[in-house]
This record gives sequence, structure tokens and C-alpha cells, in this order.
Amino acid sequence: MRDPQNPSEADSCHYAFPLPISPVVDPNTLELIRIDILPTGLDEKVKPLAPWQAVGPNEYIPEAQVLRTDLKPLHVVQPQGASFTVENFSELGRLIRWQKWDFKVGFNQREGMVLYDVHYDNQPLFYRLSLSDMSIPYADPRHPFHRKAAFDLGDAGAGIMANNLQLGCDCLGSIYYISGVLSDSNGNPVSMPNVICVHEQDAGILWKHTNYRTNRAVVVRNRELVLQTILTVSNYEYVLSFIFNTAGDVVYEARATGILSTQPLDLELTHTPHPFGTVVHPGVLGGFHQHFFSLRIDPMIAGHSNTVLYDEAIPLPRDPVLNPHGVGYTIRHTPLTHSGGYDLNPATNRTFKIINPSVHNPVNSSPVGYKLLIPPMQGILADKESFHNRRAEFADRSIYVTRYVDGELYAGGVYTNQSRGGQGVRGWAERRDILAGGDPVVWVQFGINHVPRVEDFPVMPAETLRVMMRPVNFFERNPAIDVPPSRQEVNCSVGLNGKGNGKGEDDMAGRVGGLVLGGEEGRLSAACASHGGA
Amino acid sequence: MRDPQNPSEADSCHYAFPLPISPVVDPNTLELIRIDILPTGLDEKVKPLAPWQAVGPNEYIPEAQVLRTDLKPLHVVQPQGASFTVENFSELGRLIRWQKWDFKVGFNQREGMVLYDVHYDNQPLFYRLSLSDMSIPYADPRHPFHRKAAFDLGDAGAGIMANNLQLGCDCLGSIYYISGVLSDSNGNPVSMPNVICVHEQDAGILWKHTNYRTNRAVVVRNRELVLQTILTVSNYEYVLSFIFNTAGDVVYEARATGILSTQPLDLELTHTPHPFGTVVHPGVLGGFHQHFFSLRIDPMIAGHSNTVLYDEAIPLPRDPVLNPHGVGYTIRHTPLTHSGGYDLNPATNRTFKIINPSVHNPVNSSPVGYKLLIPPMQGILADKESFHNRRAEFADRSIYVTRYVDGELYAGGVYTNQSRGGQGVRGWAERRDILAGGDPVVWVQFGINHVPRVEDFPVMPAETLRVMMRPVNFFERNPAIDVPPSRQEVNCSVGLNGKGNGKGEDDMAGRVGGLVLGGEEGRLSAACASHGGA
Repeated sequence: MRDPQNPSEADSCHYAFPLPISPVVDPNTLELIRIDILPTGLDEKVKPLAPWQAVGPNEYIPEAQVLRTDLKPLHVVQPQGASFTVENFSELGRLIRWQKWDFKVGFNQREGMVLYDVHYDNQPLFYRLSLSDMSIPYADPRHPFHRKAAFDLGDAGAGIMANNLQLGCDCLGSIYYISGVLSDSNGNPVSMPNVICVHEQDAGILWKHTNYRTNRAVVVRNRELVLQTILTVSNYEYVLSFIFNTAGDVVYEARATGILSTQPLDLELTHTPHPFGTVVHPGVLGGFHQHFFSLRIDPMIAGHSNTVLYDEAIPLPRDPVLNPHGVGYTIRHTPLTHSGGYDLNPATNRTFKIINPSVHNPVNSSPVGYKLLIPPMQGILADKESFHNRRAEFADRSIYVTRYVDGELYAGGVYTNQSRGGQGVRGWAERRDILAGGDPVVWVQFGINHVPRVEDFPVMPAETLRVMMRPVNFFERNPAIDVPPSRQEVNCSVGLNGKGNGKGEDDMAGRVGGLVLGGEEGRLSAACASHGGA
Repeated sequence: MRDPQNPSEADSCHYAFPLPISPVVDPNTLELIRIDILPTGLDEKVKPLAPWQAVGPNEYIPEAQVLRTDLKPLHVVQPQGASFTVENFSELGRLIRWQKWDFKVGFNQREGMVLYDVHYDNQPLFYRLSLSDMSIPYADPRHPFHRKAAFDLGDAGAGIMANNLQLGCDCLGSIYYISGVLSDSNGNPVSMPNVICVHEQDAGILWKHTNYRTNRAVVVRNRELVLQTILTVSNYEYVLSFIFNTAGDVVYEARATGILSTQPLDLELTHTPHPFGTVVHPGVLGGFHQHFFSLRIDPMIAGHSNTVLYDEAIPLPRDPVLNPHGVGYTIRHTPLTHSGGYDLNPATNRTFKIINPSVHNPVNSSPVGYKLLIPPMQGILADKESFHNRRAEFADRSIYVTRYVDGELYAGGVYTNQSRGGQGVRGWAERRDILAGGDPVVWVQFGINHVPRVEDFPVMPAETLRVMMRPVNFFERNPAIDVPPSRQEVNCSVGLNGKGNGKGEDDMAGRVGGLVLGGEEGRLSAACASHGGA
């Protein structure tokens, strides 16, 4: 239901007006089977339907707000264009080259953006990188809410749900858009324009050192290449990105935004704590739920014969000779011998790595590798016998490792919609395949337990999660050592202090906001003069 | 020792040439007491000194590299200036206003940058925010390495070690610099120019929703205000920032960069695993060590009478009436009644919050609050009796909560350099002060166990850690709901596809890098035309 006081507004936020009914429809015949009435109190009891009690709207569209007027424009300007190139390597694939990286980009109905054949400086790193699955089980155990558990890839499709990205809205700077072609349920081609945007961004300082003897500072900024795709799955949005930098790191970032899937609540319970959600608007409950993402990493670290292990930092026992002061610790390596599920352990700084045991770093002979930096996750709370848990066959462990088998791409199995479990990564891991000398696949799970805040309504500020793949003894030194230092002559920043020289004391001359900066040009180098008016 | 083959280069990286001697000097008389010889093997044994065996240098300075030539300039241009203002409110303090935020900025010898009196929309949030202490204990238990444990605030001083920041090097865009005045050890004033830089940055998408019924998308970008200071403490650099956004979040970010504190190793052990470090260069060991940061949060969430609690997500037992399908869970609140040390627990999604129990959210009557999002940390590995552990009186728990007492500002105590423990936050917490109705202080510890990589030499890509303070039922809705949507007319991005219209299919016309974008102006709005040449 939209705001009845504003019937012409098609974008009225209907999540502020949830109705206490849930139609049950046969998906084959589209026949209405029955209408369930929702529980709207604190327990499982269902009340007879009653006339709707008027509450006000809660709109997110800008014309319903008094917008701020003090946020001044910020432009990203690349006067010589972008640093990346895009080439076709097949009808639907793109080959991207940027800062020693090269990789291929695909786009399909289920996974959306997929990367293939990722190299740095011509050295193989990853055969395939993809979001493999998602599951969003809800906390409310009452009929029919107990069924709420979306699989946004297997049920809906990350590709077919991808947004048509708009220039200047979804990212800044010089942007290349990749379009896709999918098929509809009848097999007809569906054009999917601008489903991936490719751009560079500055990410602050990558490395700096000041030699205190000479007072000379060297600063290198972190430039990143971002491939971003955005899904809308009914109420929720996911902003999903692969981010590369100049130091050999790859980040997979997920931002969860959009609108809470709300449910109706008796109006008189608005100010009462609720066991299964947060009241975000009068008579509107935002139910507790968990988000689980499964990132599939098919590695080829210096080749396909990779080993997965974890390192832990272990204190040494006191020893009168070796550890007389009780401060010593060392690193213990535990290779994974068989496929299985594994957990993080912050107490031991457990860090998973993918190494190539037969390729050794020239500096110190360590096997070359990449480590995985993974945020901690509360595993699925639905119990082991529940369908939520059996179907979300990845939501219980931070790491699954399997031996590569053709067709094993989706952590929740091929048909999540009809799944009763037993067809996904948990089952594959339970084969206890021997991993030594094999071709492992690493499944990284991460997520949040979303306990809604009033601030998450009527649209939620993004919750951001990041998984990083970072080289460990793969290169012979800092791979970003050859990035040119950060210099004003190239970066063309503007000093706001006093006369804008930015080099002396701050002038304490009062307000600086709104300074007219036109007087700056004299200071700008030739490289900056082209936008000296800025 | 610097590179003997290049004696005129004063910035040769001496960390590639560690010598096996350690002079012991009386700090009062500056008299040499003795010279310790360092163990350079795998155990504690010390060999007689021998002639130095030549190894090559490992320089970080740009003139020693073949620099990349394919990283094109990226400018941040703010044609109407910055969105913040800076006013003086005392001789050395600044009052900053930006996007409904206001707060005061101070700078002192020990803590460097300190924030006071932080408000959002005139509502009080934080009385004082400061980095309170740091400790960096090393893993090597052998004499004299067992002593390595730096307190970069208490021993050195985050203020007095602060860099003089350079326009266009340490940040991009329109930048205001704050300078400070400290005193030297004789009490004479020392001018500290440009120790804090203030600038805005774009941080991607803050919120987005596409109404799939109307296909209308609303996108709001995340603008951030950054206050950054950078310390050089001998070998290491710390880039420390407070970051504010338009959704009421405050982030404290620490980036650790600079150079490993190296130690010498027998050249013939270069290719042998070492129990206490990673070989990063022939004959050079980067020792394992832990970094601990302690962030002091003195809150005033809607006033000074605050309570600290944690929430946990707890599965419900199966119950034929309330939880028949085993999917239910709820949130349990645990208020902290007494001062003490507390840990995270990802398995229960334990989330610490600071609330004001007497101020209720108008929407749902929950007490208003802020939650703390803290990265997991391995506690100090040096044992409880060790001096490392006793002196770093904060490095064992993610959270300490004390009741406010005048003068309790530094987690490791006032005099870390001479400390033998018992004067810092662990001791204050052990008073078991009653917290109810009091004025709590929250000490958040975070850090990394740094197991060096070859990639961390000769200068390390930053390791980044972030602590977030985020409103929970503090505001009546998304506080960023009134941020103007992201529009090309304001953002002035540039499409790289085909003719640059960026709206149609990608053209698959081959390489796009190096496109001359001069033809873009026709498409730019008046707001963008001022840098249309870009």
C-alpha cells in the first residue's frame, strides 16, 4: 500500500504501509490458494482483520525532503583520461589492463559480474572470481515469516537484477560501462545496458616514509581500479565491487543498502520492545535478519597446483634459555589436507593463505602465496535441522575448501528455490577430498547480523563488508615501490589557508568555507592550469 | 649503515643494512655503558663479530626505481570550494562545522590531534575523542630484542612526531591545514606547521534504491570529512584520521606504513624459515610484532549520563508454539554494571553500545545510542608476568570501560617509558567502579599481528584498521535522507564509451585508454563547463 493521502505519487515508500495479509499463489497456475493473516503482536497469535489505522508516510524520494544546500560539488577530473584499457576478447567478454593487472570480465544471469584469468605483471593469480551465492534468513519464527530466507543469486539472479548504471550517479570520474546480454525465460535475448562500471579512484595514502635524519618524505597514493555492479532484489540493493590496487591487492566489497523488508505491527506496540525486530515507523517492524555472502575463489597462484593453509601466532612457553622474559611468540602453519569447513579464530590471529608449494620466493625461498583477510561473521542462527540452515549450505563457516570439480559453482547448489539442502558446498566439502597437489577452490563466507536501527528507514545507509586478497611473499619487494610519488604538480590540490599557499602556518583568519579560490592559479603548475578556474 | 656503494645518498635505506651491535647508553650522562652483540642465528647464541659480508641495497626513494609511466593524473576539484568552515574559538583551538557536525580540534604533544565537544545537528555526542596510547611489542625473546616494545605516544609523543603535511601529497582536493605550537624539553615554544589536514572526500554510494515498479532510482553518495595527521616514529609511519560522514557516523582510521624495524641475520640463513621473523632481504630479518592502538572515547550521547551495554543475537530453542521450525532468534542486552575489561564475540555478534537510558527515541522509545564497530584483535601474546604485558595495560582486551576520573587520559599510564605496569587503564578498570548513572569512558583497543611479508620491504603498503561509531536509534530516520541525490549535472563525470554519451550500450570498439576527451564538452552542463577541458 502506498500513502493514501498522496495517491498520485507512484514512488511513495510502500514499506511504510505493510498490510497484515500474505497471499499464497500457485506459481504454475497463478491461482490464489489462500490468504494468510500475519501475526502483528508480540507472539504467534493472529487477530481478526480490522480497519487500517492511519499513520503518516515515510518517503525517501528527494522531493519529499527539505534537502541540504551546503554540500558543494566534488568532481573527479582525469585530464589525460583513464589509466585502464578495455579490449574485446570474445563476443561478450572484455579484457581489462590496468597497472600491471590484466583480467577478463564476464556477466551472466545468475552471478552477474565474473572475473577470469587474473594476472599481475603476467603472473597468474586467480582463474575465476565470483560471488557464488547469498542467503538472507530472518529471525521471526512465526508463520508465515518463518519462510523468509532469500537466495538473491539462486532465486533471483544477480545478473538479471543488475541496475542500468547512470553516468555521474553511481561513480565519479572517467567511467567505462560494460553492457551484457542475457536471456528471458523464453530464451529470447535481453539487452542489459551498463551493468558494470569501470573507473579509477584515489584511496588515500598507500605508503609513506619520512627519513628523520634528512627530513625527506616520500609519499605514494593508493590508486584503485573499481568494477562495480548494483543489484536491486525487491527491497534491497547490493553494491558489489572488485577493487584492484597498485600493490597487488584485490578486494571484494559488498555494500548492503535499499529498504528493509518490513512487516506490520499493532500500532499500540510501536513503543514496546519487540523480540524479532526493531520498530522503525509507527506500526512498522524491521525484522532481525542475517546476510550471508559466499565469494568463490578459484585460485591459480603461480599455477593451478595450490595449497590452502592457515597461519597462527602462538606464544612460546617461558624457558630460561630461549624465552626467559615471557615475550616470545612464533608462527605455526597448518596446511589443510582435506576438503572441509573452517573457522576464523581472532585469538590466534588465524590467517588463511593460498600458496603454491612448488614456487618459491627468490628472496627468502618461502612458497609464494596470497592471504585472505576476512571479516568475522556470526554463523547462521537457524538450527541445524531447520530448512534455513539446510538450504544455506555455506552460512555456517567462514571458509570452505573443496577440490575443484566441474560445475560446482554455486555454494547453495544449482536450484536454491526448490532446495531442501544437500546439494551445495557443505556437501561437497564433506567428501573429504584430498587437497594435496590438487586444484583447490576456496569459498569465503561473510555477512552481517542486521539488527535494524530507526536510522535504517525509510532507506538504509550502506553496511559495507570487504574481503581482501593480499600477496604474501609473492613479490620480491613492495610491488608499489615503482608508483610515482604524490606531487602537487600532478595532483593539483588547492590550499584553503590564507592566501592559499598552504605551506605556512594556518592563518586563523576566521571562516574559510566558501572562499573564492580564483586567486589560486598563480600557484598552479602548467599541468594544473587546465582547470585553474576550479 | 647506508649503502657503502653509494655513500653520497643520504636517503639510502639503512634498514637494509642492520648491524649486529646495539650500544647501551646512559640517557642522563650520554655515556656509553657497553655494546651488546646481537644474536644473528636461529637461537639465542651470539657469535663473535666478523667482517661485514656485502649485500646489495634495497632503496625506496623514487630515483632508485624505474617508475611506472601509465598512472594518469586524478584531480579532485571543488569548484565552489569546500563545504566546511573553520573558526577560532581559542588561541590554539579550531571549531569546525560541516554537514550538521560541529566539533573542536586541539593538538598536544602526547596525543597529537584531539577532538572535543562533538555534536550532530546540535545534539551532543562525544565530549572528547583521542588516540590514548599505542604499544608495539616484538616477538623475539632473545637478548636484547626482548626489550623491543615501543609506546609511540607515551615514549615519543604523537604530537611532537607529527609530519608537516604537504599540499597535494598527503591528501587531494581543497585542503585546510591546521598548525600547532608545542614546547621543547626546555619549555621553549616549537612551531608545528600543518600537522592536521582537513578535507572532504567522496566515498562511493551511501544509499540507493530503485523502485522496481516505476524503475526510478535514487542514489545518494557518501561525502566524508577527513581530519588527518601523520606521525613518523623512527622507522614507522602512522596515518591517523577522524572521518565524519553525512549519516552521523564517525570513523577512526589508522594506517600503519613506513619501514620495518629490521635486525641482522646470518647471510647463509636467508633461505631458512626463522622462528621470530620473515627474511625480507638477504641477511635482513623483519621481526614479528603486534601493534596495539587504544582509542579513548569520552561520550556524551544526548548528555553525560551514559550507559555501556552489549547486544548479542541468541537463537531461540525449538518450541512447538513459538519456534516450531527452529529459525527464531532474538537480541539480548547486557548492561555493564561495573568498570572492567571486555571482549568481542563474533559467535554471538556481540556489539557494544553507548546509550543514554533517560533519553528515548521518539519513534520507538528505545534509548538513544551509538554502537561501536571494532575489528577483531589478537590480544598481547607476551605472558601476564612479562613487562611487555604489564606495561601495555590495555593490549589484552578489546574494550575497557571506566568511570570518568580527572586525569585518566592515557591507557598505558602517564609515564610509559619508566612504567613497570599498574598505572594504566587495566588498573583503573579493576577498581570495579559502579557505572550506573555515571559518566563512563570507553577505551577501544584494536591492532594487528604483523607477520612481515617480503612485500613489506623496503617500505610497507599501509595496513588499515577502522573503528566506527554509528548511531543506533539516535535519529528519527536515516540522517542522510536529506542529502541531495547524485546527479551528473553536479558530479560532471566523463563517459569513456564510444562518443562518450555513456548512456547506451558499450561500443566494444576496442581500446578506450588514452581517449582524448576534449569532445566531451557538448554534453556537460553549465556547472561542469568550467573544467570542460578536462
